[in-house]
Amino acid sequence: MTLLSGTFARGGAAAAVSDDAWFRALLGVEAALARAAARTGLVPTTAADAVTAACAHPERLDLATVVARAADAGNPVPPLVRALQDAVGERDAVAVHVGATSQDVLDTALLLMARDAIAAVDADLAAAAETAAGLARAHRDDVLAGRTLMQQALPTTFGLKAAGWLAGLDGARLRLAEVVASLPVQYGGAVGTLAASGGAGVALRAALAEELQLASTAVPWFTVRLPVADLAGALGAAAGVAATVAVDVVLLAQTEVAEVAEVGGGRGGSSAMPHKRNPVAAVSARACARRAPGLVATLLSAMEQEHERAAGAWHSEWPTLTELLSTVGSAASWLAESLRGLQPDPPRMAATAAAAAEGPLAGALAEALAPALGKGAAHDAAAAAVREARDGGRPLAEVVATRTDVDVRAVLAAGTSDVGEAGAQVDAALAEHAALTEGRQ
Amino acid sequence: MTLLSGTFARGGAAAAVSDDAWFRALLGVEAALARAAARTGLVPTTAADAVTAACAHPERLDLATVVARAADAGNPVPPLVRALQDAVGERDAVAVHVGATSQDVLDTALLLMARDAIAAVDADLAAAAETAAGLARAHRDDVLAGRTLMQQALPTTFGLKAAGWLAGLDGARLRLAEVVASLPVQYGGAVGTLAASGGAGVALRAALAEELQLASTAVPWFTVRLPVADLAGALGAAAGVAATVAVDVVLLAQTEVAEVAEVGGGRGGSSAMPHKRNPVAAVSARACARRAPGLVATLLSAMEQEHERAAGAWHSEWPTLTELLSTVGSAASWLAESLRGLQPDPPRMAATAAAAAEGPLAGALAEALAPALGKGAAHDAAAAAVREARDGGRPLAEVVATRTDVDVRAVLAAGTSDVGEAGAQVDAALAEHAALTEGRQ
Amino acid sequence: MTLLSGTFARGGAAAAVSDDAWFRALLGVEAALARAAARTGLVPTTAADAVTAACAHPERLDLATVVARAADAGNPVPPLVRALQDAVGERDAVAVHVGATSQDVLDTALLLMARDAIAAVDADLAAAAETAAGLARAHRDDVLAGRTLMQQALPTTFGLKAAGWLAGLDGARLRLAEVVASLPVQYGGAVGTLAASGGAGVALRAALAEELQLASTAVPWFTVRLPVADLAGALGAAAGVAATVAVDVVLLAQTEVAEVAEVGGGRGGSSAMPHKRNPVAAVSARACARRAPGLVATLLSAMEQEHERAAGAWHSEWPTLTELLSTVGSAASWLAESLRGLQPDPPRMAATAAAAAEGPLAGALAEALAPALGKGAAHDAAAAAVREARDGGRPLAEVVATRTDVDVRAVLAAGTSDVGEAGAQVDAALAEHAALTEGRQ
Amino acid sequence: MTLLSGTFARGGAAAAVSDDAWFRALLGVEAALARAAARTGLVPTTAADAVTAACAHPERLDLATVVARAADAGNPVPPLVRALQDAVGERDAVAVHVGATSQDVLDTALLLMARDAIAAVDADLAAAAETAAGLARAHRDDVLAGRTLMQQALPTTFGLKAAGWLAGLDGARLRLAEVVASLPVQYGGAVGTLAASGGAGVALRAALAEELQLASTAVPWFTVRLPVADLAGALGAAAGVAATVAVDVVLLAQTEVAEVAEVGGGRGGSSAMPHKRNPVAAVSARACARRAPGLVATLLSAMEQEHERAAGAWHSEWPTLTELLSTVGSAASWLAESLRGLQPDPPRMAATAAAAAEGPLAGALAEALAPALGKGAAHDAAAAAVREARDGGRPLAEVVATRTDVDVRAVLAAGTSDVGEAGAQVDAALAEHAALTEGRQ
Repeated sequence: MTLLSGTFARGGAAAAVSDDAWFRALLGVEAALARAAARTGLVPTTAADAVTAACAHPERLDLATVVARAADAGNPVPPLVRALQDAVGERDAVAVHVGATSQDVLDTALLLMARDAIAAVDADLAAAAETAAGLARAHRDDVLAGRTLMQQALPTTFGLKAAGWLAGLDGARLRLAEVVASLPVQYGGAVGTLAASGGAGVALRAALAEELQLASTAVPWFTVRLPVADLAGALGAAAGVAATVAVDVVLLAQTEVAEVAEVGGGRGGSSAMPHKRNPVAAVSARACARRAPGLVATLLSAMEQEHERAAGAWHSEWPTLTELLSTVGSAASWLAESLRGLQPDPPRMAATAAAAAEGPLAGALAEALAPALGKGAAHDAAAAAVREARDGGRPLAEVVATRTDVDVRAVLAAGTSDVGEAGAQVDAALAEHAALTEGRQ
Repeated sequence: MTLLSGTFARGGAAAAVSDDAWFRALLGVEAALARAAARTGLVPTTAADAVTAACAHPERLDLATVVARAADAGNPVPPLVRALQDAVGERDAVAVHVGATSQDVLDTALLLMARDAIAAVDADLAAAAETAAGLARAHRDDVLAGRTLMQQALPTTFGLKAAGWLAGLDGARLRLAEVVASLPVQYGGAVGTLAASGGAGVALRAALAEELQLASTAVPWFTVRLPVADLAGALGAAAGVAATVAVDVVLLAQTEVAEVAEVGGGRGGSSAMPHKRNPVAAVSARACARRAPGLVATLLSAMEQEHERAAGAWHSEWPTLTELLSTVGSAASWLAESLRGLQPDPPRMAATAAAAAEGPLAGALAEALAPALGKGAAHDAAAAAVREARDGGRPLAEVVATRTDVDVRAVLAAGTSDVGEAGAQVDAALAEHAALTEGRQ
Repeated sequence: MTLLSGTFARGGAAAAVSDDAWFRALLGVEAALARAAARTGLVPTTAADAVTAACAHPERLDLATVVARAADAGNPVPPLVRALQDAVGERDAVAVHVGATSQDVLDTALLLMARDAIAAVDADLAAAAETAAGLARAHRDDVLAGRTLMQQALPTTFGLKAAGWLAGLDGARLRLAEVVASLPVQYGGAVGTLAASGGAGVALRAALAEELQLASTAVPWFTVRLPVADLAGALGAAAGVAATVAVDVVLLAQTEVAEVAEVGGGRGGSSAMPHKRNPVAAVSARACARRAPGLVATLLSAMEQEHERAAGAWHSEWPTLTELLSTVGSAASWLAESLRGLQPDPPRMAATAAAAAEGPLAGALAEALAPALGKGAAHDAAAAAVREARDGGRPLAEVVATRTDVDVRAVLAAGTSDVGEAGAQVDAALAEHAALTEGRQ
Repeated sequence: MTLLSGTFARGGAAAAVSDDAWFRALLGVEAALARAAARTGLVPTTAADAVTAACAHPERLDLATVVARAADAGNPVPPLVRALQDAVGERDAVAVHVGATSQDVLDTALLLMARDAIAAVDADLAAAAETAAGLARAHRDDVLAGRTLMQQALPTTFGLKAAGWLAGLDGARLRLAEVVASLPVQYGGAVGTLAASGGAGVALRAALAEELQLASTAVPWFTVRLPVADLAGALGAAAGVAATVAVDVVLLAQTEVAEVAEVGGGRGGSSAMPHKRNPVAAVSARACARRAPGLVATLLSAMEQEHERAAGAWHSEWPTLTELLSTVGSAASWLAESLRGLQPDPPRMAATAAAAAEGPLAGALAEALAPALGKGAAHDAAAAAVREARDGGRPLAEVVATRTDVDVRAVLAAGTSDVGEAGAQVDAALAEHAALTEGRQ
């Protein structure tokens, strides 16, 4: 990992796709395959036990040679199989790589690794969601200026904003969980016919799936890459949620807005500017999340695979999927850190929202004028009043107060910071979150 | 639609995202909103009926003006609302756009349109799947040279290849169906608080969802774009499946391979080369499918949306999602056409596979040598025999026949074109397909 | 063009890639090809004249049939050639499509169309650059709070910001101009050998290039798509510049910042919020620009093309490149519009910068402490002073004033809003712009 | 670097973006900055010498701490500056990081590293080009079946195919060279005003550019990322060229085509299939190249950067650009290796082309019929003859020989494998290559 990519690597996902993890996953598949072959009656249990034992001690294998020969073979499985055969000896080698092709082992290992990495991603998303839930609860009724197209619009609450984050984070978790639950084993032999599985290939595939707690399949998916596409889609969605929450934090932390600050960790100092307090965690989450869409596109482009094994597209998946898992994991981890240290400033929010009350007031004026002028013309008249106030440098309330065509008191009253059913919606989001959390336990 | 993009537009999805479809969808949402508001008691039923009636007659609305003013407003909803208000008159205008913001109507309409377009995509994918199932059944045991990294490897069957296509097409359909079933209504008012919904916003949202047969939500998803990401992911996956089946057709139709031909429609002629028969439908499917990954990346990049409504990212979704629906629909339609006209040539397949028998034979030799030499050295010895045959320009069988270290007859027998459990896997895939198809009826 | 993609279509580029433009470009190539063939002595001048004349009257050709048959042929050229042959009659048909293959005509037409579209893009970028230059000149010394990571940092000037925009816009134009100047003709015949060009193919290619003012080439580029990649790269870069300028406008126009406003056109109203003034043009520029990267990725992915003509990748270029030209053109046009209506508010900028003066002051304090404490510790001490001021709710100047370890007067003086060499840099950027503009005339 | 991404890492580019390279580049910029400051008179030469000396010995710096603190600062420059200050001592620390901000150092270092990496990419592309030139020369007139849409079309030569590769490789090199020659220094201080450069910032920038042999600029390009876009575009184009050459190799090496083989290195063996000879180098080149478009899209998406320094987009460039450099470098290196070991089989090519002669013959028949029937009907008649031959299982020549409406002898003569001006075009491409190569020396 290079210095600069390493700068933002964070959380467990990166570790789950390390070299060590790759070897563990590949050996885990080989061990499970040996056991499955024994259960299917294809090899002696003693041989399978020997293979399982050898796979449990990667440090005894000559992995340097495996790495060195991987490029020649086009993938690391052939030299790894050779190393395993050497390790267990001639008699038990019969239980190594039974009926399998490199892609069987590699694809299955890749999904196992993805499952582990996603567990780490999920832990960070869960932490972020929990914090968001806490914010939604604590600030359920704290008024905040809602902003559309970056302009202050009508008032909302910080609770509702946090509830939106919560719904997104929980939604991303659900999608990842569904994909993980559907991940299938890969097992087909050289071209998918199971011809080297002694007539027990279908049964062996089912046993292997059971060993690894993966789904089984009717046919191999060597060149029909839906499992990879599912991972790509769910990880891309998770990155998007992380990015949208992070950009909200960055925007709320703007000097001019200052409705939240990111606190903690001694982070955020500037070499040239000792006075700055940057929302470094949210910025880092955004940086990591933004790498996802391009990686997803690469994986989707790689779905076009030729005949029984692709000549390049398959190979392009490996670094791309591991990068994707790693960067989405980092984004989730940074986001959890950002939210954990988030310091909202409700009085500041309230003050801004009050100053922004022009919005509701204009709305109330339009509504009051509607019966007389029709909805359209009333809208125009309210817009004209806003312009009049602005051009004259006066508060809109003052302009409204001079009107004779509406019940001024009613308009001014209606023009308060009504946040409608914000609270009820927060409660609903928290209830959904509680249901989800309970369902997980 | 330009001439050249139009060249490959095909199937119902493109029509489902046309201008007409947009207007119908927007008006459908406004009509449903009026009815939902009436059911919630916010507006008189008569007014809602008037709005519903007006929405049923887009030809009576001044849509040219709506289009002309859309850019000024940043979206077409404000001028459409104005047109509707004018159409129903002052009294019933109270039932127009109740409590809503432009994004409520636009997002909901976009998903309705996506649902319609995906129905068309699904019809074409279903047709392609049905044809693939027929091919798998008809050619269950027809031997075909399996090919990995574009090299002939061991034998498989055309039935198993078609079963792989079938599993992919059915898988893509399942994913689309899941996404369609989860598509949510959008309803939140200006900043999501439902403040303009007279205290009945939560109820109105549920009623609106019911009217349109969409899911409801706890909070708006204005800037948490999981539904768009879900569509992007499932459409990208469908495109990938279409591409991988299409590339198989193109490769099997290569002059040198000639194991299938694409027949029908008078297509495939060449201006300069009267003798050519190009697999135009498969080529077109590939062309359409390849546009998807970049569009998916754009939609995922657009998930980072600011505050309560994004300043650009949201707007970039509209043409991108409609293009994606349209191009994936075209890919599915071309693929259905390609498979429908597919003419497999089993004798040719068999002849090639027989010539390719060198592969199994080398495998059998390696297996026979393994007890004596160990698995690794046996592999090397078999590879050496292959080289010897090649260098000498002799059949491998001849070289094998001269060996004294193996039971030659047994090796030559084992080296037949064993396609293992190909047939059983085809049956399993067909059974899964039948279950899916029944489940749909 | 659908309603919603049409919402943001703007400027001349979209028109330059319309159906009409496609036909004009294809016919333009056929006409030039006939003339080049005559110049090379391959066909009678009278026949070439007849073809040129027919190409000048597309309305006399049966284009509906051409469109209808385009999909069958896989591209529109074969039916167009047939229509042209019919139009000129048997004798002069000898001058139609001399020695050419469909891809010769289609690729060349595509580049001609791209050249026209880029001329429109360039006009809008030039207008935007001119406005940016005007802003840089007019506000050369207007102080503005510089912002890094969305936090106020040290002061800069609005002039320098506009000069940065200017440099980017001019840079994007230069890149587009370089690409346009290098666009090559495509001419090779069926498989690139020029076998149907009567031995004069190389000469004909050169003549054709001259006719169309394109570059000639040593060999065809049927499957080596550098010209398309060049267009993609330069258009993607232009989109990125448009996006970065647009996001600055959107951020400066934020309600809380309000240092610029986008004025004009009656745009920016909100259906639900009559008081809002949205920077619609900048938002639209951003929306259009954000579609570019995914389209560029599609074009780059399509560079992998098989043998002498690709089976799908080539075809995927057409709609993608036209969409890219159109959306980048729209982004440029919206940006020009946004800048044209930009109303900066220098007093507001100055007030904000003054309030932000804490930054320079902390810097001055750190510098003053450095000789005694060392640079590192001085930085820490200044940061501590900032914290002390913040925690105590006092201005930093007050905290500084109590120190005895520095020359307080000097520090306070140094802590003014020094904008360094901002002005000189503005002048340099304007000089470069002037040189570029003169070079173009 | 993970095991599986590492499987395909190859060539010098990956090393040029390693952690070590990052540190060397960052320190190289700091050293050059000190020297430039001395030349500009801002710091004593002795201090600059001390900094230069310290930068030459990264092993004496506490880089572990720099890495550990990089994430907190959001980038590695602040802790590196602190380490340098400590290393040179208080007196000479005045020459450390003069007037600079982190982004000045980081951006400049990134471009230096890109320049080094591209030198490695170029070396591999040059080697590939040289080999392609050799192939074009050696096989200038070796006939090969041209293939369009994967169907055999008319004959071409292997020399012309190799000349096309050559033109692409040289074109990619030219684009990279242009970008490298234009790479600019970054220097602006905290917000770009040069306020901390003692009034000599503009001069210092020029001096720094000279020290590092980079271009200077009128203004900083902190958030106007054209240099990064230029790199992305040229690297994406190079990847596309590598992919299109590699796919040709893979297709020519297909078992059924077998017109080339990839020899050497002991690569290409299969664990399950000892008889296979996979074109592993070409497959690996393709795998590496296919990762580029998504990474390019990420860099282009990151061009939208806020105000004076972006909050995330900038940071997302680092790992993305380094990955892009590394994967394009690997693609170039694998391609060079693939071409180096390429063994063409001209007799096989000739045999296939002869069998494919049906194409030219049909063309000749169409031409002979044209005067009598008109070009269109003649085309149809020739296509009918092809069908007749196919349906009857007879050679087309036999069918043609029975016709009475054409001069049979002339048609059969014309229907030879005419490769037109293939040779002349090869010569032209070789001449362009020679000119380019000489220009480089």
